[in-house]
Amino acid sequence: MHIIGEKLNSSIPSVFTALKNRDAGLVCRMAQQQQAAGADYLDVNAGMFPDEEAELLVWLVRTVRTGSDLPLVIDSPSPAVLESALAAFQRPEARNQKPETGIKRPVLNSISLETERFGPVLALALQYNADVIALCMDDRGIPETVARRLENAHKLLSRLSENGISPERVFIDPLLQPVATGDENGLDALLAIRQIREMSPSCHITCGLSNLSYGLPNRRLLNRTFLPMAMLCGLDAPILDPLDTQIMDTLTAATLLLGRDEFCGEYIEAFVQP
Amino acid sequence: MHIIGEKLNSSIPSVFTALKNRDAGLVCRMAQQQQAAGADYLDVNAGMFPDEEAELLVWLVRTVRTGSDLPLVIDSPSPAVLESALAAFQRPEARNQKPETGIKRPVLNSISLETERFGPVLALALQYNADVIALCMDDRGIPETVARRLENAHKLLSRLSENGISPERVFIDPLLQPVATGDENGLDALLAIRQIREMSPSCHITCGLSNLSYGLPNRRLLNRTFLPMAMLCGLDAPILDPLDTQIMDTLTAATLLLGRDEFCGEYIEAFVQP
Repeated sequence: MHIIGEKLNSSIPSVFTALKNRDAGLVCRMAQQQQAAGADYLDVNAGMFPDEEAELLVWLVRTVRTGSDLPLVIDSPSPAVLESALAAFQRPEARNQKPETGIKRPVLNSISLETERFGPVLALALQYNADVIALCMDDRGIPETVARRLENAHKLLSRLSENGISPERVFIDPLLQPVATGDENGLDALLAIRQIREMSPSCHITCGLSNLSYGLPNRRLLNRTFLPMAMLCGLDAPILDPLDTQIMDTLTAATLLLGRDEFCGEYIEAFVQP
Repeated sequence: MHIIGEKLNSSIPSVFTALKNRDAGLVCRMAQQQQAAGADYLDVNAGMFPDEEAELLVWLVRTVRTGSDLPLVIDSPSPAVLESALAAFQRPEARNQKPETGIKRPVLNSISLETERFGPVLALALQYNADVIALCMDDRGIPETVARRLENAHKLLSRLSENGISPERVFIDPLLQPVATGDENGLDALLAIRQIREMSPSCHITCGLSNLSYGLPNRRLLNRTFLPMAMLCGLDAPILDPLDTQIMDTLTAATLLLGRDEFCGEYIEAFVQP
């Protein structure tokens, strides 16, 4: 599993304020707390500041780097903003080189089949040796059916692969829609994840769990109930709040139940009192 | 969903004591609490009293009947004990008649392919118009593979159907094994449930969730993490503790996520503060 910590997002009020005030202490603490809680990647987003997104994202990347060595998921729809952020923490001499063994590449969040996005983000991924989150959408917008999500996932994996980015470097995001806006959205999300996994055993599959629960009460309950079902279907890189102990406990339990925790080792370590 | 409340089981210390002391108040309260919490069936078991199991089960059935009108799941491996309990609450004139509309039949827990059990329990089910929990085991014992669980489920559904008990009246139990005794047991259970559901869209599928977590810490976490995955695979009649609010909340959330809660009605009713 590859846990992508979602906390360093400007849509969260405390992070918004921290960005506004350049509060490096809070940003560093939040990075370190997510790492300690089990995050494998840290998403960084400054999208709530449209007029200074690039500048703030560069500050955010540099600041997080002082507190955590986790790979970053650089989160912006704008290729120009992504490039500023990449340039800020990738040493120039590292560009165009294969990464050292054991060093995880940053992830660009995101590429899609949209004409304005595909080419420029692909170019950045190649230039900076970055992996990509690939949204299952094209110029027609977010797909309304599972079949079109699958079709878009197939196109993304093919076109990226033709351009030298193999499926192991792609995190497909089927784009979950809130269950509040459609009774079928939860089941459709699970079917999409399962069909993408059947199509590609080697790509990663990601999604923002909280997208699903948008507009409903007790959102954390919905997020953590969806997680084991999605893991069973093939999700391996959820974007979630690693500081939510209940969802992290659910993840530990689901990992055991899916036969991925030899001799229950991780589970027992987490829950047996010393 | 058909929730089978597991609390009136003599292996639970407080129930053991209540049975020993013929504490009708506690038994009635436990029946009513489970009904209020959402149980659709109440399992009743006096198996920890091997020398007086029949007598105590009769007392338990009669006592529960004074406090709840839910259908009972009569839980004993012994056909003779099952018959005593059936006779205790089924009016003689009701025998051999079709049940009135809307009245749910009792469920015999359980029949299996074991030679000593199949014929006698089948005879009781026919005589008393009872449904059955059917364990996927035969004279060779509990199956070690998913394929043999499926084979046994197929034999049970066929042989029961040939004898007049249609799949709608059968609760197949794939017999979950503890994950503590084998890393593959959780995934095998899910595969078995999925394959049984694919084979028979109309039978019920049941299992004791707590069987899976036996021997491990934080068992309720494992039970409630397994539930949504099992529901996705086709489980529709879990045996669980309806007084565990966390597992019941998980059930409400999973029902919504699986598209079975129109306009999020039940979910919102459960979680929006009035």
